[in-house]
Amino acid sequence: MALFRNPAVAISKQLSRQSSLSSVAALSRVQGRVLPLAGRAFSDKNSTQTFDYNKKNEGKSSNIVWSEGLISNDERVALTGQRGATLWITGLSGSGKSTIACALEHRLLKNGVNTYRLDGDNIRFGLCKDLGFTAKDREENIRRIGEVAKLMTDSGCITITAFISPYQRDRDLARKLHENSGLKFLEVLMDVPLAVAEQRDPKGLYKKARAGLIKGFTGNDDPYELPEKPELVIPTHEHDVDESVDIIMKTLTDHGVFKKSN
Amino acid sequence: MALFRNPAVAISKQLSRQSSLSSVAALSRVQGRVLPLAGRAFSDKNSTQTFDYNKKNEGKSSNIVWSEGLISNDERVALTGQRGATLWITGLSGSGKSTIACALEHRLLKNGVNTYRLDGDNIRFGLCKDLGFTAKDREENIRRIGEVAKLMTDSGCITITAFISPYQRDRDLARKLHENSGLKFLEVLMDVPLAVAEQRDPKGLYKKARAGLIKGFTGNDDPYELPEKPELVIPTHEHDVDESVDIIMKTLTDHGVFKKSN
Repeated sequence: MALFRNPAVAISKQLSRQSSLSSVAALSRVQGRVLPLAGRAFSDKNSTQTFDYNKKNEGKSSNIVWSEGLISNDERVALTGQRGATLWITGLSGSGKSTIACALEHRLLKNGVNTYRLDGDNIRFGLCKDLGFTAKDREENIRRIGEVAKLMTDSGCITITAFISPYQRDRDLARKLHENSGLKFLEVLMDVPLAVAEQRDPKGLYKKARAGLIKGFTGNDDPYELPEKPELVIPTHEHDVDESVDIIMKTLTDHGVFKKSN
Repeated sequence: MALFRNPAVAISKQLSRQSSLSSVAALSRVQGRVLPLAGRAFSDKNSTQTFDYNKKNEGKSSNIVWSEGLISNDERVALTGQRGATLWITGLSGSGKSTIACALEHRLLKNGVNTYRLDGDNIRFGLCKDLGFTAKDREENIRRIGEVAKLMTDSGCITITAFISPYQRDRDLARKLHENSGLKFLEVLMDVPLAVAEQRDPKGLYKKARAGLIKGFTGNDDPYELPEKPELVIPTHEHDVDESVDIIMKTLTDHGVFKKSN
């Protein structure tokens, strides 16, 4: 079978490790709580997770069960003193997303805050390197970023995403993902006129797009859908970087994400 | 065009926001450092990122550029006092991966350490819900987890992954991804004989697999390749959960990931 990679070795190694078992207890269930580990001291303290067999599964994998940990998000925040949030920065190419994200990350870190920047192009070098720029791939790109941001934010990180994310529907999906898990999601529009973004053109992409060398480029032959209800709008052509970061820090403070005592 | 979603609205909204620009400076380059934002106060402080045009791109996306932030990983650690690491827990279904991961996460959080658990089944409800259990899908599943773990660990988190991850090649790819970025990767084998895992069978999956109801099940008709050089091996049938966590904490301490003063 193609799935087997050197099966003889794997299986023989496995068998050679078999040992006698004197104390393996059978699986016990106590009021839906599973005690999955059996060892020398088989007791309640071996129970560290709860299986939720009713969790809605919209995915392709069958035979999967949601494993709830020992710690709720609130308990985690109480233990670490850090509550996460996703700051979803959206806007045209050249609107200042990455620039502001870098500066904001720096400012937060200088305040000792656990933060991380997920940047559009960088993610395409790694997690999303199997994706291109078709509408379907863009949707999948943003879907994955939404999922990763949710995980990082759940961990207590202020997660700064910097993606064009041109479609309202995709941004709404990312928001819903967070809000369904009780996690903060703040949509921030870097709001510059197309003409400004095109004049900046930091990577020379507008020029290429106008020359027909890039297809499906946002602002050229693919639309940017303005956020309907962003938590924050920053006209980056009217503020320098420090001012823009000040504005975001105020919003983070207003939403209880950043505390000045940090 | 199919890509346009209500383009008339998007574009007219966009145009209505155009404003006069008195101070938009042209893009400046200083020794490879890009000053991408132009505003009222156009100065060096608007430079927050460096573009690396030579970063090797193995992915599908063209016209992407690596954006280096203002902060190196070492600087981040100095500012937050937290150095991340990925603890890659591997082993058969029923070997205790999730159980130990939950308990370890709890222990670390009680010590005020920034940590997070990426759990096999849970990730398949979200980030990897488009994937099944074919060899190709399993490979992609582990690839994505490796990428996400790398991001979280880079952020300063002790990232605990709990996936069967049966193939050496896939685990090695995850390790390489970390080590290439100077990030700590510790492979931990939950080492129980197949017979023990099958006897525990917390989700009833071995039973289903033996009955032919699940195809490609690790330990039944798909192999588990034992790690060649794991940093740690825990025979979970010989230790209870607390002892197993003690063993991992010692390893984290030995590797400088956890400091008792934390």
